[in-house]
Amino acid sequence: MILLKCTRCKKRLAIFFRPYSGESLCQHCFITSVEGQVKRIISKYAMFKPDDRIAIAVSGGKDSVALLHILTKIEKQFPAAEVIAITIDEGIKGYRDEAIRIAKENCKILGVEHVICSFKDLYGYTLDEIVKITRDREMGPCSYCGVLRRRALNIASRKVEADKLATAHNLDDEAQTILLNVIHGDVTRIARVEPVLCAEPPLKFIPRVKPICEIPENEVALYAYLLGIKFQSTPCPYIGTALRHEIRQILNRLETRHPGVKFTIIRMAEKIRPMLKKGLTPVELQRCRVCGEPTTGNICKPCEALRKLDFLKY
Amino acid sequence: MILLKCTRCKKRLAIFFRPYSGESLCQHCFITSVEGQVKRIISKYAMFKPDDRIAIAVSGGKDSVALLHILTKIEKQFPAAEVIAITIDEGIKGYRDEAIRIAKENCKILGVEHVICSFKDLYGYTLDEIVKITRDREMGPCSYCGVLRRRALNIASRKVEADKLATAHNLDDEAQTILLNVIHGDVTRIARVEPVLCAEPPLKFIPRVKPICEIPENEVALYAYLLGIKFQSTPCPYIGTALRHEIRQILNRLETRHPGVKFTIIRMAEKIRPMLKKGLTPVELQRCRVCGEPTTGNICKPCEALRKLDFLKY
Repeated sequence: MILLKCTRCKKRLAIFFRPYSGESLCQHCFITSVEGQVKRIISKYAMFKPDDRIAIAVSGGKDSVALLHILTKIEKQFPAAEVIAITIDEGIKGYRDEAIRIAKENCKILGVEHVICSFKDLYGYTLDEIVKITRDREMGPCSYCGVLRRRALNIASRKVEADKLATAHNLDDEAQTILLNVIHGDVTRIARVEPVLCAEPPLKFIPRVKPICEIPENEVALYAYLLGIKFQSTPCPYIGTALRHEIRQILNRLETRHPGVKFTIIRMAEKIRPMLKKGLTPVELQRCRVCGEPTTGNICKPCEALRKLDFLKY
Repeated sequence: MILLKCTRCKKRLAIFFRPYSGESLCQHCFITSVEGQVKRIISKYAMFKPDDRIAIAVSGGKDSVALLHILTKIEKQFPAAEVIAITIDEGIKGYRDEAIRIAKENCKILGVEHVICSFKDLYGYTLDEIVKITRDREMGPCSYCGVLRRRALNIASRKVEADKLATAHNLDDEAQTILLNVIHGDVTRIARVEPVLCAEPPLKFIPRVKPICEIPENEVALYAYLLGIKFQSTPCPYIGTALRHEIRQILNRLETRHPGVKFTIIRMAEKIRPMLKKGLTPVELQRCRVCGEPTTGNICKPCEALRKLDFLKY
């Protein structure tokens, strides 16, 4: 076994090899490099202002807890900035309870305010109840959960008077989503996978930012592990779609043999996004006729989902 | 075992199930359906005029030989149209010789004129010689072959005074190329995967058309098999790139589980192509300073490749 010196400090022993850059990094340089990369992403996409109140969506998984730690550390350098953690409690027995405990613990350690917002309070249903109601029907639990969680995050961010909502989508998530949209032939969605998502005021949409969208998943995991950060590692009992899982495996296999492929994919999307936006009919957001939240149609997806649930219940 | 009736004629027994349409087809209806589909592709993209002289690139493999048979059949309905087969002899011992014999045989059966054009005559090198010269160098035999073969096809088409050059790219080839370009992040090339490729006159570029670009590879193979068409089935000894092979496997696996995925990918490319073309700086073709053939730079790729070979030889 050959022990390699760190490519950056040239002193300490390397603990991590980064195939797409050819670097071997020691623990200290790896952590600094990840944090530096997040700072570069924030500045490249002008994600924050120095006095932003930033809501961080913390599920309790490795990505969101790592994001919470990194952002808290970075924002300490901006005394006028504030961070606040938001956890959505979908109501998944034996899973979300543990995640909430972990999110709480991390917030306590970091001295960050923690707000929990539940599906039950907001919508009258837990996800477990939704699963029971919708069982054997075409729209699976993940579709309901995705639609309702995004809405819950917007409502909660507004409630805590946040200027931005930061989510923990990593490089793998983004590359997967782009490839999924290519395979689905969904041009509008290819154009919409972006690091910053805004809507024109006076719509009540809190701008969304993805500060770790260019950090590979394995590096986020290693970052959390090296800092001894506690996170939930059991997966959600209502596993995601089969196609996304396949795309994940495909991309990981490709990345092993062709390091950098995930970056290439998000760069490609970055390049074509402005062209697609110019070519596509612009999506005009308006207020949902039922709840007043921003939507592309007359009635928003969450209201549609809730109507369906009310109907199916009987 | 359940014997299914053909979905179309409702009389004969089905021999083929088409997962993406749900049809079960008998031999007769399958053949008619493939030929009808090719006619629709030709008309959708306005590939030919009734009095076109069409050069068909016939390598001797299943796709090009099937294309030769289908086009000859279709063009018989247009008395002013002519077809002529072109085979490029790259000079690959123990492989191309057999292919040429097969191409010749098919042309004889169909009464189609057959023209052979060799790398050796055009460029002074056979591919075998190129492989020997370039061994262990970064630009592999497939890169040389691709560049020189495309040029040879253009020269040969011009020599036989063809109005169009038809190549046998099938649906799988096209979907693979699009996905490859996505993974390579090559936006210009995503925009250039199209069924018809033209250049402004007075450039000496014979317009290229792909009449089977929406027929799945397995259907082309079955078509050739059912009609008892002879084709070369041994693969080229200089196998293609590893990445394309991986993409082929990925797409085939995806197609099995999600029938229609290859179509979705080419439709997606079709949708975004005009947007990309608008957004990208238009590629201006000019004459190569060495040979006068159309090129995007000062010196064309084939001339660059030949210069490199002349240099490496010594």
